Amino acid sequence: MKILKEKTITDVNGIKASGIAGGLKKSGKKDLCVICSEGKPVASAVFTTNKVKAAPILMNMEHIKNPATKVIVVNSGNANACTGEEGIKNVNIMAQTAADALGVKKEEVIVQSTGIIGVQLDMGKIVPAIEEGCSKISSEGGDDAATAIMTTDTIEKKLTVSFEAGDKEITLAGIAKGSGMIHPDMATMLSFLVTDLNISKEMLDLAFKESVGSSYNMISVDGDTSTNDMAMIIANGLAENQKIESSNEDYAKFKEALIYMNTELAKLIAKDGEGATKLIEVEVKNAKDLENARKCAKAVIRSNLTKCAFFGADPNWGRILCAVGYSKAEFDPNKVDISFYSEGERIQIAKDGMGVDFDEKKAKEILLKEEVKVDIDLKDGLYSATAWGCDLSYDYVRINGEYTT
Amino acid sequence: MKILKEKTITDVNGIKASGIAGGLKKSGKKDLCVICSEGKPVASAVFTTNKVKAAPILMNMEHIKNPATKVIVVNSGNANACTGEEGIKNVNIMAQTAADALGVKKEEVIVQSTGIIGVQLDMGKIVPAIEEGCSKISSEGGDDAATAIMTTDTIEKKLTVSFEAGDKEITLAGIAKGSGMIHPDMATMLSFLVTDLNISKEMLDLAFKESVGSSYNMISVDGDTSTNDMAMIIANGLAENQKIESSNEDYAKFKEALIYMNTELAKLIAKDGEGATKLIEVEVKNAKDLENARKCAKAVIRSNLTKCAFFGADPNWGRILCAVGYSKAEFDPNKVDISFYSEGERIQIAKDGMGVDFDEKKAKEILLKEEVKVDIDLKDGLYSATAWGCDLSYDYVRINGEYTT
Repeated sequence: MKILKEKTITDVNGIKASGIAGGLKKSGKKDLCVICSEGKPVASAVFTTNKVKAAPILMNMEHIKNPATKVIVVNSGNANACTGEEGIKNVNIMAQTAADALGVKKEEVIVQSTGIIGVQLDMGKIVPAIEEGCSKISSEGGDDAATAIMTTDTIEKKLTVSFEAGDKEITLAGIAKGSGMIHPDMATMLSFLVTDLNISKEMLDLAFKESVGSSYNMISVDGDTSTNDMAMIIANGLAENQKIESSNEDYAKFKEALIYMNTELAKLIAKDGEGATKLIEVEVKNAKDLENARKCAKAVIRSNLTKCAFFGADPNWGRILCAVGYSKAEFDPNKVDISFYSEGERIQIAKDGMGVDFDEKKAKEILLKEEVKVDIDLKDGLYSATAWGCDLSYDYVRINGEYTT
Repeated sequence: MKILKEKTITDVNGIKASGIAGGLKKSGKKDLCVICSEGKPVASAVFTTNKVKAAPILMNMEHIKNPATKVIVVNSGNANACTGEEGIKNVNIMAQTAADALGVKKEEVIVQSTGIIGVQLDMGKIVPAIEEGCSKISSEGGDDAATAIMTTDTIEKKLTVSFEAGDKEITLAGIAKGSGMIHPDMATMLSFLVTDLNISKEMLDLAFKESVGSSYNMISVDGDTSTNDMAMIIANGLAENQKIESSNEDYAKFKEALIYMNTELAKLIAKDGEGATKLIEVEVKNAKDLENARKCAKAVIRSNLTKCAFFGADPNWGRILCAVGYSKAEFDPNKVDISFYSEGERIQIAKDGMGVDFDEKKAKEILLKEEVKVDIDLKDGLYSATAWGCDLSYDYVRINGEYTT
């Protein structure tokens, strides 16, 4: 697998995209993204588990059953969530508008919206914006598309990798957004991946859903599971590799690339969490099973008290062990070891469920880094899991106290 | 039932208490509390559900099986949690010290500790402090006891009521503490109730456990379930009412007083949540069953995004509906109505799962009050539940970023 630093989604064979300012954001920033694939693509997607599902999610859950999803339209600035029948009608108009403009069937279009909840879309703005966006798709539009899906994000989130399947070079690229209302219980925030791989829908589904479990579903910014979130992938087959229809060597290489991509995009989202000053990685080792390892890691990454301690660079390991304790995971509290790591430095702060004497100055130095890892060894089995999140800062409170007003 | 404003726990027949400064808190504030009951009391208690249980919790779970709990000893400043065998040894020494000083059996003593996790108690200070506290118990020591159990609390939490059982006047009084690391999944924070009611242990257990479910277990400050928390009641029978041994009229009056007391103490704790600027009450009405009503109310009170919106007095009802959506409760998203209340003012902001036009200025005025109620009508059944919490402020982040350092 190679990481292609300068590449983006439109460097994948057959993928064109655009990102324009359609007037939905008061700021005048880009707010409409179109991604279009040639060929006969297959697609896979996961959707939010929130019972309150936004109108586009409800439509997309039907459209994704179509074997050939060719177009993704995303607006930022308004989530089209809690908008009732009118919201459903509007998302269908959005899909039809894109279908007409690009000459595809309405069922081949996936639509997403992100932004404020509970306000109807301004269709007088969005319909012409979609028409303009569709008319502007090109092989150079990948970065504009990545920008247009941002809301409170402070950085673009994108990644492109390549790997070989048989004698063919396959490109896999993704863009993502997400900064608040992010928590593992959901399907995920917005993430759109495209690849020119030739693969059956069944194998694509299998690989994609597995990779989501260890990536997007293992991050938390604030414990809030959104109404709108989804992750999806389109594979258009234009690389002309021998079609992957079973769990063969090519499938293994694809899955490796996919897990890498989804994990890195998930970490970008965690690091760019609203108000975050640092990325926190929690690895739980030697748990009884994967489920227990994930429960522990997610409880720690979600703990407000632990997140505040990281913000203050306070080596308060008791809060970490406390969060492991209420995670509902099975483990022996008297066996737990805890260490902090960053940039090759490591310090053990608890052993067998109790504090050890440690150099507070060194611990503080480690916790002041931009990326900090917490290593929790349960010494209770063979399974590991990693979760990612960020600290809880004054800015998180400011951003979310001021959002609509 | 009468509320006795000026009374405290030592106004209950047969109850003596003290609160002294034993040198455990660096600030020199009171940090050791002793409560002692005469007669042949019965007691009931609930303990944290955290798998990481502090040493005193482990000992108390054995001691509470004793029919006659007579003494409660509490220190603040150090939680004696994650302290291993030495912690267990120390809490047993604490119980024995109090037992010797007061002439009771060690098993008749309940010990609690609250404060920092993972540091061994300074037994050179705590043993003489317990001896001094036991020597100073009196019928005037109730308020000192309430002060001595405080940590980051900014106000004393106490309440006294009276009711009649037969021709006897019964007094029920309680003190509580709790300000951070508070979340409904636990048994509770620290709460100690005393009454001179004559009641069997079975009926006391029944009433107490039921009242905890609708009070302490329905508050959240930060979603973190502590290692130490407990609520307990001692009933010493000195009011000489006819012993309550079944679900009779006296039992009903006792339960009413108990639910009132636990609910009010729980609300005091929520209102005094770390950094809180206001008390938030979430009532979920007309749910399919009690379990669903409680799930919804707890999800909203725990949502960081909703808590930030309340801090900013931002009527962002979409976040509330979003939290109801991920609560895992069963309900119809298209039926949900949401209103805000405060001091007799009311404003409806969502109807049938969608926003309604509302007066933003009036909504803001309501949200700026010190106590705000969110009314969520699921229109889906007959059950209601109420949860209490507070907003998420800059000060919560400051307090918890600085705690040990």
